[in-house]
Amino acid sequence: MDERTALGVLAGRLPHAGDDAAVIEDLVVTTDMLHETTDFPPGTTRYTAGWRAVGASLSDVAAMGADAVAAVAVYGAPRFEESEVIDFVDGACDVCEAVDSEYVGGDLDHHEEFTVATTAVGRTDEPVLRSGAAVGEAVCVTGALGRSGAALRLFEQGATERANDLFRFEPRIGAGRALAPHASAMMDSSDGLARSLHQLAEASDCGMAVETPLPIDGAVDDVATDERERLDLGAYFGEDFELVCTIPEDRLSEVRDASPTPLTRIGTVVDSGVTLDGDPMPDRGYTHRGD
Amino acid sequence: MDERTALGVLAGRLPHAGDDAAVIEDLVVTTDMLHETTDFPPGTTRYTAGWRAVGASLSDVAAMGADAVAAVAVYGAPRFEESEVIDFVDGACDVCEAVDSEYVGGDLDHHEEFTVATTAVGRTDEPVLRSGAAVGEAVCVTGALGRSGAALRLFEQGATERANDLFRFEPRIGAGRALAPHASAMMDSSDGLARSLHQLAEASDCGMAVETPLPIDGAVDDVATDERERLDLGAYFGEDFELVCTIPEDRLSEVRDASPTPLTRIGTVVDSGVTLDGDPMPDRGYTHRGD
Repeated sequence: MDERTALGVLAGRLPHAGDDAAVIEDLVVTTDMLHETTDFPPGTTRYTAGWRAVGASLSDVAAMGADAVAAVAVYGAPRFEESEVIDFVDGACDVCEAVDSEYVGGDLDHHEEFTVATTAVGRTDEPVLRSGAAVGEAVCVTGALGRSGAALRLFEQGATERANDLFRFEPRIGAGRALAPHASAMMDSSDGLARSLHQLAEASDCGMAVETPLPIDGAVDDVATDERERLDLGAYFGEDFELVCTIPEDRLSEVRDASPTPLTRIGTVVDSGVTLDGDPMPDRGYTHRGD
Repeated sequence: MDERTALGVLAGRLPHAGDDAAVIEDLVVTTDMLHETTDFPPGTTRYTAGWRAVGASLSDVAAMGADAVAAVAVYGAPRFEESEVIDFVDGACDVCEAVDSEYVGGDLDHHEEFTVATTAVGRTDEPVLRSGAAVGEAVCVTGALGRSGAALRLFEQGATERANDLFRFEPRIGAGRALAPHASAMMDSSDGLARSLHQLAEASDCGMAVETPLPIDGAVDDVATDERERLDLGAYFGEDFELVCTIPEDRLSEVRDASPTPLTRIGTVVDSGVTLDGDPMPDRGYTHRGD
């Protein structure tokens, strides 16, 4: 059973699961596990790892339109080097502080591979789900896409300082709060823009017609060798943590004024199908050259 | 740096950490990671693993005297067998239901070793810390000690059904709620009774004078070959999830009436030292024969 099928089986048994975070009472709760081999390329500092791992959970809180209350993490490693543990915790504390939340600790665990399990808790009385988009609304995205894809190239090239900078993103808690009263559906772009659009479309039983130019980070322009690669890194790669949402047209200017992060209108909610400039936009992540 | 030293280094940086759960606003949050090699002996069913992993986090919530709101888990495994995943989730759901809480999902993660990261969230306006014990108060423990030690022996002997039963404990949320208005200090016995007494004594800057007979589970009598082993499994082994607490003498009968779990008075808070029947009680876990 692949991961998607397994998650589908579980969704039927767990009525509160299936969105970016689970909703219970006035709280949202989300948990995730990251590993050295798949999530932290060589060159990633422990400070960046702490920031990014905790930030990924805070991003799920943001995607619900909730305030971030607290985050915890389990730090699993074969050895506990004092400087590494402190750097990790400093990164975790700093990303929480950046969104007025608090890192309240967690646990240490002996683990062969460097592994981090993070959980974030948020609070909201009106969570924004993935399922409320309506035909005719605007499709919007916060900030700029492709930072993580660009960072991965930079790690490969040995430009680790800039890569680490790009890997430390600001979770969009402030934007999520500003969007919450207006957005009809929202999620984060951690699976890539294309997959996020497909997931919003499926959950809301509608389609999304998106147009270029998309807001793609300047770092992508620096590493991409052509337009196809630029689009791959910006719209398909994922591991980004922007918010993708749908908003009634007449609320757009109000939301733009309220959001601390720039908001770009990239398309319109339609009856069915997910398209980019009129062509089908595949429900996939990044495609390696030669695949 | 060993785990204890590392936790000490972190305690200075994280003011909300260091108790069974972190306290933030009216919430308590706790997280933990368990593995196949160290926590789930051969013969442990996935149902028991789900129950026990989530139960361990709920026990930390109980130790704060809080109500359990919700739990989440990351299920990490090399493969996602449908029946295994469902059994795990059923165990997680059932232990939450046993304490009027809710299992709200989590995530799946490809991992070489079966690994579970769990987080529980509770709510209380008056958390009971480890640091409030005062000289002259009664030292008490809920239920009976040694279930997990006995279970481990039974797993080794191939008596897996009874071992699984013993491994599935009821987190003491109800008892914790009943104790909360009266207990001056509290924690769970997951590191064993001896270590728990030492940790309460250190946090409260006092001592604990404990007397036999201790409330040791009948399953321990069935597997222990002599009194020394009985005491080792009951008081030192740990991985048990009873509550150890201190209560003013004049509140004892009221608390006993209110607690859904039997409460045994095992000793008295004293100025310094942790003793069992007058002899020093070492700050250690289980000692394997021949060590």
